[in-house]
Amino acid sequence: MTAARRIVVVGANAAGMSAAHQALRTAAARGREIEVIAVESTHDTSYAACALPYWIAGDTATAADFTARTAVEHRARGVDLRLGVAAVALDLDGGRLRVRADDGAESALGFDDVVLATGAIAVVPPWARRADGGLVAGVHPVKTLDDGRHWIERLSAPSPAGRPRRAVIVGGGYIGVELAEALLRRGLAVELVTRHRVLASLDPDMSQRVEERLRAGGVGLRVETEVAGLEVGGSGVVSGVVTDDGATVPADVVVLGVGVEPNSGLGSAGGISVGKHGGHLPDPGGRVGAGAWAVGDCCETVHRLTGERVYLPLGTHANKMGRAAGQNLGGGRAAFGGVLGTSITRFEAGAASVEVARTGLSTRQAERAGRAAASLVTEGTTASGYMPEAAPIATAVVADRDTRQLLGVQIVGGPNAAKRVDAAAAALWGGLGVDDLAAMDLAYAPPFATAWEAVQVAARRLADRL
Amino acid sequence: MTAARRIVVVGANAAGMSAAHQALRTAAARGREIEVIAVESTHDTSYAACALPYWIAGDTATAADFTARTAVEHRARGVDLRLGVAAVALDLDGGRLRVRADDGAESALGFDDVVLATGAIAVVPPWARRADGGLVAGVHPVKTLDDGRHWIERLSAPSPAGRPRRAVIVGGGYIGVELAEALLRRGLAVELVTRHRVLASLDPDMSQRVEERLRAGGVGLRVETEVAGLEVGGSGVVSGVVTDDGATVPADVVVLGVGVEPNSGLGSAGGISVGKHGGHLPDPGGRVGAGAWAVGDCCETVHRLTGERVYLPLGTHANKMGRAAGQNLGGGRAAFGGVLGTSITRFEAGAASVEVARTGLSTRQAERAGRAAASLVTEGTTASGYMPEAAPIATAVVADRDTRQLLGVQIVGGPNAAKRVDAAAAALWGGLGVDDLAAMDLAYAPPFATAWEAVQVAARRLADRL
Repeated sequence: MTAARRIVVVGANAAGMSAAHQALRTAAARGREIEVIAVESTHDTSYAACALPYWIAGDTATAADFTARTAVEHRARGVDLRLGVAAVALDLDGGRLRVRADDGAESALGFDDVVLATGAIAVVPPWARRADGGLVAGVHPVKTLDDGRHWIERLSAPSPAGRPRRAVIVGGGYIGVELAEALLRRGLAVELVTRHRVLASLDPDMSQRVEERLRAGGVGLRVETEVAGLEVGGSGVVSGVVTDDGATVPADVVVLGVGVEPNSGLGSAGGISVGKHGGHLPDPGGRVGAGAWAVGDCCETVHRLTGERVYLPLGTHANKMGRAAGQNLGGGRAAFGGVLGTSITRFEAGAASVEVARTGLSTRQAERAGRAAASLVTEGTTASGYMPEAAPIATAVVADRDTRQLLGVQIVGGPNAAKRVDAAAAALWGGLGVDDLAAMDLAYAPPFATAWEAVQVAARRLADRL
Repeated sequence: MTAARRIVVVGANAAGMSAAHQALRTAAARGREIEVIAVESTHDTSYAACALPYWIAGDTATAADFTARTAVEHRARGVDLRLGVAAVALDLDGGRLRVRADDGAESALGFDDVVLATGAIAVVPPWARRADGGLVAGVHPVKTLDDGRHWIERLSAPSPAGRPRRAVIVGGGYIGVELAEALLRRGLAVELVTRHRVLASLDPDMSQRVEERLRAGGVGLRVETEVAGLEVGGSGVVSGVVTDDGATVPADVVVLGVGVEPNSGLGSAGGISVGKHGGHLPDPGGRVGAGAWAVGDCCETVHRLTGERVYLPLGTHANKMGRAAGQNLGGGRAAFGGVLGTSITRFEAGAASVEVARTGLSTRQAERAGRAAASLVTEGTTASGYMPEAAPIATAVVADRDTRQLLGVQIVGGPNAAKRVDAAAAALWGGLGVDDLAAMDLAYAPPFATAWEAVQVAARRLADRL
């Protein structure tokens, strides 16, 4: 009898643990014996990183609420999970992973297959660091569960005098917008500084709609503005953010929301290649070499509309990539189908609430991909105009002028506006045309839509102009 | 110079007026001269019939709110609209329509093209009629604007003693469910009697979920129960509904919600054929013969998944059919793409609220169409479980066991559940597989979805079992 094939997974969050459990399930269904060990440098596992803004806002009370599975549950389902164990060197040819425990003790772990699920790390600009490399006090990203704990603690000082009153958020992406909501709801005054427009993956006129809502909700916005440096008080704590236009924005705390990058150092040093965004380049099955796999936020993915590698680290992709790789590791056959760049968020501040979503290519992305892009923004309502549910919705549609292929859709609107981007995502997934989106049989009743659904009116108006 | 081509449209609601205006727009864009006359037997035009339940409920105050365009607006845009003019006989070969004005005067209207947009009429069972053919007092359908006026008046008697307290709704389709909500909100006690299950185009276990919510919301439900007759008081006013199990359900008013049928008598007598559901059978362009067109609820449509003619009278189809025919009438070229049977509704009664949607084929419909149907219901949540927005959602997915083609999706759930049926409708429109629905890049963020979107989990679980 041969020993069970051993799979070592590096990183115990969405992608890694999806792969681990799926491998076990698939192998069991096929009567194969495998052993799955997962090493995780922190003591946290399978938490929803996307939950952090809502934890900080107070929507969810404890990290346990957004931890999909505890270590005990992972182990009960057959994964030999080792927390506080960092992977320090990968010897792919030798089938060995060098690991270091919390106490500093190093050892080697042999494997038949290794799965890199090392995730992403927050980008920290040079101006945010002290001379010794550490973060300036009061300045912090929002990436890991530890980052979340930092913010909860910082915002919950026992005495009101100890709590920050003024926050500057640097970065106008999803984390920036979501933290703006969270910190406003916590009672802070919020300024947001971004070198681009807010949610810059939207067309500029759609970004502008979001910015208008942020301003209406009380966020001080400084767009197309670079941070030049920090103002730091005598105690070493940040007191302001200096921008490239010479202004100093007072700050008790600074949120770093300038993006994340693939945590691909371990694999890269072990000879596994990375792409132009610094992420690993798995094939659709998850393979990056013989006996080597990579899944989740440490990877680039393939955009279905351009065929190009993009870096879009999102929990939903991590889950899907992990599951496909797990099926292959267990002896099945599966492929990750790529991404469309679909995303969604909201900014909730009373009457200034806004929902935002996008899928596919923006006008600029389509042009860069060499497409003859045509686009149009159409205003509508989410429900029939005579219903109390009716809220405004602006829909941007991008299509190829030559082939009439649908290329992208963006939505900015009130309650129940954004999730209808999914119909467009499904159309993009199927390679359908802008005429298909206009014609298809979507759900209509007065509380839910107009007789011509807003997204379809937008598609039809663009189609009429092509 | 030849005279402008004359188009006569019969019926001035969604389908007819879409055709009329689109014909004028398309002709204008092509430099063609046409004349459009529309005759309408009532004095109402372009109102949203779907609005009636919400008008009765009090969501919208006046019929003007849900009238898309008034007669004055139609005329200002070039349609010669003649209200109170009934079409009584069609001479297609002679190109003449015999019409009768309100005062009884008859005349003939010549045409080059005639567009039948005569809509649907409410089905009235024999037991609802008096010996003289009229409706028993207190018994009324909910189809036309006049029906809506009847109900508003009946429910708004000046003295409380004059207002009905107990309603029996006959029929468990969309109108039945929506009237149940409307009348509960008006303070009436509501019993609903249906010979089928509630929303019988759903799979039975999905209907059951809706029924449970209706009961929780206070509706007395009698499913799979036939109406045997009425109990009528000395004044000739209904006092109860007698069911085939021998019960008598007390009623001050009875809502007829047993469906509608195509109003195709004019065309049929004029030689235009009808199908097995009694509706006209236009080609995708809207043509039913030389110089003859039919659009909207007087027509059957083609189901995209089976190729069969079905009768699904809905405002959204009427608009799309009208528009396509109008483009062709104006010298353009357009086709109506058929239907998927997508529909959506809600029942709102405090904590018992429920949203319901469907698209494609139910399990039984798929089996009848000769498909090797597999189906599965999966429970999930509309948002990440740790978010306050999270509500239950049950998703039924139907697929072809042999080809893995997606065949249908049904959703029953809480707030924000139902409209996500659109992603499935788009997938069906594109002929995609159940694996595509499971894999596609739909929008995820904690307030809007779970990391694996509920509909995708449902598709994936079914796909795993095929």
